[in-house]
Amino acid sequence: MTLKAIRTLENSDVIIGYTVYVDLVKEHFADKEFLSTPMKKEVDRCVMAFEEAMKGKTVSMICSGDAGVYGMAGLMYEVGVRYPQVQLEVIPGVTAATGGAAVLGAPLIHDFCLISLSDLLTPWEKIEARLLAAAQADFVICLYNPSSKKRKDYLNRACRLMLQYKSEDTVCGIVSMIGREGESSRMLSLKELMDTPVDMFTTVWIGNSQTREIGGKMVTPRGYRHE
Amino acid sequence: MTLKAIRTLENSDVIIGYTVYVDLVKEHFADKEFLSTPMKKEVDRCVMAFEEAMKGKTVSMICSGDAGVYGMAGLMYEVGVRYPQVQLEVIPGVTAATGGAAVLGAPLIHDFCLISLSDLLTPWEKIEARLLAAAQADFVICLYNPSSKKRKDYLNRACRLMLQYKSEDTVCGIVSMIGREGESSRMLSLKELMDTPVDMFTTVWIGNSQTREIGGKMVTPRGYRHE
Repeated sequence: MTLKAIRTLENSDVIIGYTVYVDLVKEHFADKEFLSTPMKKEVDRCVMAFEEAMKGKTVSMICSGDAGVYGMAGLMYEVGVRYPQVQLEVIPGVTAATGGAAVLGAPLIHDFCLISLSDLLTPWEKIEARLLAAAQADFVICLYNPSSKKRKDYLNRACRLMLQYKSEDTVCGIVSMIGREGESSRMLSLKELMDTPVDMFTTVWIGNSQTREIGGKMVTPRGYRHE
Repeated sequence: MTLKAIRTLENSDVIIGYTVYVDLVKEHFADKEFLSTPMKKEVDRCVMAFEEAMKGKTVSMICSGDAGVYGMAGLMYEVGVRYPQVQLEVIPGVTAATGGAAVLGAPLIHDFCLISLSDLLTPWEKIEARLLAAAQADFVICLYNPSSKKRKDYLNRACRLMLQYKSEDTVCGIVSMIGREGESSRMLSLKELMDTPVDMFTTVWIGNSQTREIGGKMVTPRGYRHE
């Protein structure tokens, strides 16, 4: 967590978030008022935040990672149209792509794409087109939401698509529970990744043509000088 | 800066970095030993860090943004091969893509690509292919190193390429000096961006087909529900 985020929470009257994240910060900010809504109640959560702010309170809406990367920042602006009196500020954080990259070594370093495999709000055809474009242009690719109960085979499907342009020996990495109790990571080839079951707390990195293993770490060199 | 980064610097004997960044942290960690090398002396800087560590010291190598995104983490692992006794840990930070996004509003939110326009270490043909692939697959695109003295027309060239697939009304944003004294930002269309001069301290965001302006902020909605 950044110093700015900590100070912002300290200066808040109310902290709002998804139940799990509220529980994670509760003990560190004992004197605050806490409110939460369950998953899939994101719009309600935003409305709740604006209604509290309309009472004259300073409100913090929290999410995991960075609020601007698959987080609540966008929805807050969308809902905020109805509350023009309320001033909104986004405090950046460390997203899983960079937080988990630090665990694996230095897998990103150069140009990369972030793609979510969740098709709840995005048509799968659009996700497919992005996977193919990113693989063809030799990006390092970081996958969010690689799996869920209803989408057990999505990572396998994504790997098959990327194999049209990436070698099956491409260096890949997975990290679970980034920065939390029980954090674990593993390096593997794209071929192995294809048949590896992952859960919704896992983030996946697929290297570019230059990515390699150095001393047990996943490293993408900065340039293409040696090509 | 994250709390973990602050604590790591506090626990270091030596702090090493590019001159400009060393000067930025010097006043906050007065009791440390500071070493620096100028720009383009990155390998020397890494060797310097490992040589200090070999003396039994705890050394921090600093860079701006996140060390794993166009930063020093990769090179440290590459140079580290020669120093297997030295233990290396990467502390994640806030990269310009997310730090500057918070200034503009919520431009990323969904799938996005990070592309550097610097062709010092990457052939321009590869950069071109990535710009086209990212534009065609409707990614939000964040451009690092959009300009320099020797590459004044690169942003213009990049915009022309992206216009093959993105509308000239695509919502774009630029932020200079992110999180520093003199920070400034601006929203504009892709057509306007094409003829806008930027410097090397500027980061550029090009929206996807859904990105829009909401209350003076650049916002990409989370999903494609309304398509």
